[in-house]
Amino acid sequence: MEINEKAYKLGSNRSVIRELFEYAKKRSAEVGADNVFDFSIGNPSVEPPEIVSQTITELLKTENAVALHSYTSAQGDPGTRKAVADSINRRFGLNLSPDNIYMTCGAAASLTISLKAVLNPGEECIVFAPFFTEYTVFIENAGGVVVQSKPTDDMQIDLDDFKSKINKNTRAVIINSPNNPSGVVYPAETVKKLCDILKAKETEYGKTIYLIADEPYRELVYESVTVPYVMNYYDDSIVCYSFSKTLSLPGERIGYIAVNPNMKDGKNVYLAVCGAGRMLGFVCAPSLFQHVIKRCIDAKVNVDVYKANRDMLYNALTEYGYTCVKPDGAFYLFVKTLEKDAVKFSERAKGKDLLVVPCDDFGVKGYVRIAYCVAADTIKRALPKFKELITEYKLN
Amino acid sequence: MEINEKAYKLGSNRSVIRELFEYAKKRSAEVGADNVFDFSIGNPSVEPPEIVSQTITELLKTENAVALHSYTSAQGDPGTRKAVADSINRRFGLNLSPDNIYMTCGAAASLTISLKAVLNPGEECIVFAPFFTEYTVFIENAGGVVVQSKPTDDMQIDLDDFKSKINKNTRAVIINSPNNPSGVVYPAETVKKLCDILKAKETEYGKTIYLIADEPYRELVYESVTVPYVMNYYDDSIVCYSFSKTLSLPGERIGYIAVNPNMKDGKNVYLAVCGAGRMLGFVCAPSLFQHVIKRCIDAKVNVDVYKANRDMLYNALTEYGYTCVKPDGAFYLFVKTLEKDAVKFSERAKGKDLLVVPCDDFGVKGYVRIAYCVAADTIKRALPKFKELITEYKLN
Repeated sequence: MEINEKAYKLGSNRSVIRELFEYAKKRSAEVGADNVFDFSIGNPSVEPPEIVSQTITELLKTENAVALHSYTSAQGDPGTRKAVADSINRRFGLNLSPDNIYMTCGAAASLTISLKAVLNPGEECIVFAPFFTEYTVFIENAGGVVVQSKPTDDMQIDLDDFKSKINKNTRAVIINSPNNPSGVVYPAETVKKLCDILKAKETEYGKTIYLIADEPYRELVYESVTVPYVMNYYDDSIVCYSFSKTLSLPGERIGYIAVNPNMKDGKNVYLAVCGAGRMLGFVCAPSLFQHVIKRCIDAKVNVDVYKANRDMLYNALTEYGYTCVKPDGAFYLFVKTLEKDAVKFSERAKGKDLLVVPCDDFGVKGYVRIAYCVAADTIKRALPKFKELITEYKLN
Repeated sequence: MEINEKAYKLGSNRSVIRELFEYAKKRSAEVGADNVFDFSIGNPSVEPPEIVSQTITELLKTENAVALHSYTSAQGDPGTRKAVADSINRRFGLNLSPDNIYMTCGAAASLTISLKAVLNPGEECIVFAPFFTEYTVFIENAGGVVVQSKPTDDMQIDLDDFKSKINKNTRAVIINSPNNPSGVVYPAETVKKLCDILKAKETEYGKTIYLIADEPYRELVYESVTVPYVMNYYDDSIVCYSFSKTLSLPGERIGYIAVNPNMKDGKNVYLAVCGAGRMLGFVCAPSLFQHVIKRCIDAKVNVDVYKANRDMLYNALTEYGYTCVKPDGAFYLFVKTLEKDAVKFSERAKGKDLLVVPCDDFGVKGYVRIAYCVAADTIKRALPKFKELITEYKLN
């Protein structure tokens, strides 16, 4: 092949999510959008907080246009980085400076940059199944090798399995909580034990193992659930954040990387982050939205909407006889399929215009992901179809 | 080293431009910003066209906020891609469809993605000196090998030298006109000859050689100069564009890749572009600015301001005895240094608070780059210092 084969394959093998997303558009044209129940994509459905649009309007009126849209330094506007550091310190009792923060074009950029910064070709990166499919792409782009750790039955981390997957070639571990696609939150006890294992392994092998927390869903948690902050448990940690879900701005590509100020080699890791960003072609995070973040750092969407969706969907599906873990956060329900083959199940659901994502690529077989970041009415009208589906399965 | 050494080195060896930019801030704090003449960075100084801020305000008022800030498809909003394709077709008599356009997070992204799409590890990419320093970083990130072709005395392409640099391992060529750092525009005759050479070499080696045109400065040309459009000369061509300079929005990271519709393998190249974007962590180009581009596709900044700066600076410096090519576009003047060592010359200029970039890393020794995208008054007040500098050199 004359072009880059890996890039070509990735471009032509559309992700299963993207396939369904495109199918939804086609099918909507045929039967009307109201009759297609698209649970395929994690596109936030809740309005951004009003302060976002107010802030943009205000910035356009009051700021010098050249300055507002100008390059920031590669690591980000100093005021924005200070706002982010201060917010983390306030919330999690830490002591970050703006020089621990690197603003990015969203969560995917946070990850590709962090992985490129810490991985050397051939080194291993552990991910916990079920995991966001793109982790594989990002780790491989950094020259790394993906190692999967399997979950417990309730989609939590299996610490024994995790321990068995660490070896002298392990360089990084990605943790994602609240989790895409399961919606589970890893409790403090698990995170503490996981970090204790990592510390022991660092000592055993005399090397650094980086813990990368991918946290786009941090603010989307329900009731009194809290998400432990990895920096309080492990020095060699990096937090990859995005405002996509917190502020319902997924298209604007704005997030950050935070390097633990207590990391022994932290300054060098930060420099490697800067270098990796440069290599990948990220010049700076979008400047208007950096200014928005500086002024809206503590804003967030109305999470109650997602909670109401979760309750309606979870309660109904479990009542009908479906099996799934009750999600504490994010906006996904991870449902056991009614036949072994998740792709076949998804196809059968598609026959009822229920678009759900088969999760084989997420590292767990026999599950689909239902993204419930949709209008409540869509869920309401979809429920009878989910009921029909399980009834049919029971009859056959 | 426990982290990625390449990333660390790139992050810690700041570019010479970035060094001067930081020095300017420090020095301004000491002697006042008015007394520091910072010609180091290509940050547009002309206001964005008014229609940009009007359009944003309008979009915020009229569009649904969720849709406005939502993910677009990875290749970009269909309406935006259509506006881009139509504009290219109108201006250059071509026949692009939206499916030839892939929206990006700016010029650097356009390049890293295109290079990753077409290069296989170890393949060569030819660049024409003087060239933007980051080309080296981007080509190496794609696993490619940089091959430099030297310029003629007037900073044009030396076609014989170019021809001698092509071999069976050549996969791509980057052309940048108007050029950073020289400001020269390659005339149609040169582009035609260059493309004829490429066609002959493609036939000789029985392989595809991609011509990548990096065109962030396309709209910044003076008087009646026109910049030939490579797609009209060569089928295996890709145009990398950015609105950073055209609309004075460098911080917003918005641009595109256009794949020649007449490229034999064009569909596959486009798919490889999609895959490369995915690998590098570019989910989509910033959505608000995609919507802005759709509505402001033919807007551009007032180029007369840059032209006036060019005239004032070029006329004065050549009168004082400096040697430089008269730039037809972009906002850089490429000046022969008054001693062999460009770094030493730049240091001596720094002693007069004139911050100019030594261009050794741009592939040509003995030159500095003066970015004249500054207030006219800054140039006016800097002129006596440039005069002093050359007078001192003449005395010693």
